Amino acid sequence: MTAERAPLGDDLIAELSGLLGDRLSLSAAVREQHGRDESYHHPQPPDAVAFVESTDEVVAVVKACAARRVPVIPFGTGTSLEGHVAAVRGGVCIDVTRMDKVLAVNAEDLDVVVQPGVTRKALNEHLRDTGLFFPVDPGANASLGGMVATRASGTNAVRYGTMADVVLSLEVVVADGRVIRTARRARKSAAGYDLTHLFVGSEGTLGVVTEITLKVFGIPEAILAAVVSFPDLDGAVNAVIETIQLGVPIARIELLDEVQMDACNRYSGLDYPVQPTLFLEFHGSEAGVKEQVATVEALCEGHGGGHFQWSTRPEDRTKLWQARHDAAYAAMGLQPGTKPMATDVCVPISRLAECILETKKDIVASGLIAPIVGHVGDGNFHLVLLVDPDDPDDIARAHALNDRMVMRALAMEGTCTGEHGVGLGKMDFLTAEHGEALGLMRAIKRALDPDDIMNPGKIVRV
Amino acid sequence: MTAERAPLGDDLIAELSGLLGDRLSLSAAVREQHGRDESYHHPQPPDAVAFVESTDEVVAVVKACAARRVPVIPFGTGTSLEGHVAAVRGGVCIDVTRMDKVLAVNAEDLDVVVQPGVTRKALNEHLRDTGLFFPVDPGANASLGGMVATRASGTNAVRYGTMADVVLSLEVVVADGRVIRTARRARKSAAGYDLTHLFVGSEGTLGVVTEITLKVFGIPEAILAAVVSFPDLDGAVNAVIETIQLGVPIARIELLDEVQMDACNRYSGLDYPVQPTLFLEFHGSEAGVKEQVATVEALCEGHGGGHFQWSTRPEDRTKLWQARHDAAYAAMGLQPGTKPMATDVCVPISRLAECILETKKDIVASGLIAPIVGHVGDGNFHLVLLVDPDDPDDIARAHALNDRMVMRALAMEGTCTGEHGVGLGKMDFLTAEHGEALGLMRAIKRALDPDDIMNPGKIVRV
Repeated sequence: MTAERAPLGDDLIAELSGLLGDRLSLSAAVREQHGRDESYHHPQPPDAVAFVESTDEVVAVVKACAARRVPVIPFGTGTSLEGHVAAVRGGVCIDVTRMDKVLAVNAEDLDVVVQPGVTRKALNEHLRDTGLFFPVDPGANASLGGMVATRASGTNAVRYGTMADVVLSLEVVVADGRVIRTARRARKSAAGYDLTHLFVGSEGTLGVVTEITLKVFGIPEAILAAVVSFPDLDGAVNAVIETIQLGVPIARIELLDEVQMDACNRYSGLDYPVQPTLFLEFHGSEAGVKEQVATVEALCEGHGGGHFQWSTRPEDRTKLWQARHDAAYAAMGLQPGTKPMATDVCVPISRLAECILETKKDIVASGLIAPIVGHVGDGNFHLVLLVDPDDPDDIARAHALNDRMVMRALAMEGTCTGEHGVGLGKMDFLTAEHGEALGLMRAIKRALDPDDIMNPGKIVRV
Repeated sequence: MTAERAPLGDDLIAELSGLLGDRLSLSAAVREQHGRDESYHHPQPPDAVAFVESTDEVVAVVKACAARRVPVIPFGTGTSLEGHVAAVRGGVCIDVTRMDKVLAVNAEDLDVVVQPGVTRKALNEHLRDTGLFFPVDPGANASLGGMVATRASGTNAVRYGTMADVVLSLEVVVADGRVIRTARRARKSAAGYDLTHLFVGSEGTLGVVTEITLKVFGIPEAILAAVVSFPDLDGAVNAVIETIQLGVPIARIELLDEVQMDACNRYSGLDYPVQPTLFLEFHGSEAGVKEQVATVEALCEGHGGGHFQWSTRPEDRTKLWQARHDAAYAAMGLQPGTKPMATDVCVPISRLAECILETKKDIVASGLIAPIVGHVGDGNFHLVLLVDPDDPDDIARAHALNDRMVMRALAMEGTCTGEHGVGLGKMDFLTAEHGEALGLMRAIKRALDPDDIMNPGKIVRV
């Protein structure tokens, strides 16, 4: 706890305890756990953690906090990567993990309604016998509420979109405790300002998401996954670029550089060549998948790609993609004791090869270990910079590398974060990225949260 | 001009004339033309029309108006359908039709940058030799700025999305004259609040769009269009529902009821059966299109659909879709002298058949002529209610029918407008649709346009 802020008043603790009983925790261990995510950012624990079980309870907690101008920080699985959950001004953390019900599966409309604590894997488990699936898949088994908050993405985004594309509607408790619904369940609407997209990616700074209506998709008739290695990074990236430019409806096209492949081989017990590699997946009809494969095989061959190693059985595919999802954990294993500074940028695909190759040069020059991995079909890639959070030199070198990568991406008409979000780690880049538009973001924040109590100190400073 | 507001001051006219010369018009005919759209809403002319040619000129006009709290109303082709351009408090209309340049075609990134006065057809004409096309196609040859403003949609939305899905970034002149850019050209970003989607569909009430970055798509290898008639509306709608639920990636699936088919036959010189009819288009590889056709033919047959009449030559397809796009004009021809009250709703597709059939009963009971036509793959359909704007009884019956249709759609978790927007015509339904969320929209409007000068009196009352 910092000196600048007062701890919670006894009256607030009494009110919240009266409401939640032992679901209000003041224990140091629980608070510590809720002040950290999976990143290198230093933990900043909240003053209390409220384990809520309903929208009504969220309303009560927010109203109690709002009356006293005490910060409110929503919390799901704590798997964000930019310090999103750090309680920089203390306050009450609202842990939504017990709000974990799938409320409706509208199979005929290809949508579902869930509470925010449902994780992406739990949703797919729930959908198992319906012939439907939910595609958005960040590495972690994140909560869907958290994925809404960070505008999460993943390996399927190139075909199925990000959270910005699959959220149909949200129920949100806003800063004064009102409960609003951002849209109806219709597939499209022109009825007023688009509040749904405003809340997706707002990182808890405008309200607490308490219910989510999501698009789901039919499991395709045919699914084929493959791995293909390249002699150089250039070839791998250019094969991706041509695949996208040709409009192949590929479901997944993921790049892992040789450093990352080495890490994945060790962590996940694989034996792929330690070379720049693409993980691919094709969805469609039997005939459609064959067509896509023929096109992409030819493009990869043209860039020096080796033969495709196929995973046709579902269990092999699961193993392959679990290895991809575990890439960040695998990276950490390369240098035990370090924490990952996981950073991501996204550029127009015509600039992707140049951006990745220049970044690779910077990594070599820095002396840091920093695997490259990316959802390159979207122009999006990550570095996992391995740093000792207590070593200022490590942190300084990593920040310098990150700064150069971000500024390079911005110069290429790209963005400082494709999917991880702003949190604490990317705030200082928003002026360079948005210019005058940052003033509008600030005006919106002030309008919807005049006392700055909703996850304060993130995205914009007010 | 109404009595409640003062006309423009001489100083403002002098300032704008100094800036624009004879591109500032005060003529009654020009003002009249700029106060009307294609709907039944009574024209409400602005006090002056500024024919701008650059972002800088838009800035100068907005600043001049803002300094005097004079309303600013952006204007493209004037083809909106809910009174969006009516100058309800007078002011200066900013006509952007001379800002009609395609600024960049980034073929490798599948995007283009255009000025707001470029029409959808002009853009496709410009793209003719690139192998690319822009899919969003409201009936009119609207300006892209206007299509951003109304969150327009059209026949291809079921496959390629609406304006909400294809706008990557906007340059906007906001209420105080600042120029902002809502996003970079990257395909995705998690860098702060989603201003792009906030401006798409904001109907000029938050700013004047001066530049648009849009996704474009590769022209598919194979395109096939077909027309199929059904003995009843029920069968046609259920064939659509099953097509969508099966996940067929159909590019267009449009419903026209027998009244609309009669109108189209007459207006466009066609001779299709006067029955409920689907207009279909399939995009993909040769093999992919064949698969889609086989699936959809079987579904249609199962609901009593007749044989498919194919349009394989590009010129036949153009004729077919021009007829569809002219549906509203065709409808007007059914009762010369009337104006169309074109209204639209959108519901979850599982409720679409019920919603359309109940609406059809209401039409019969009303005695009005009102063809049904719709982008039914999205759950979206329109009535074109033919009314004499000067006959209060006509207007009253049409409003009653519209009210019932909207409230029915809302009861089915649908929206009061799928694509036409709010304008003047749907404002009174927003409370029923959005409840408390309307308060947030109002707060956003106040924050970004504190003096209420940007197209005032639309979407929300402040």
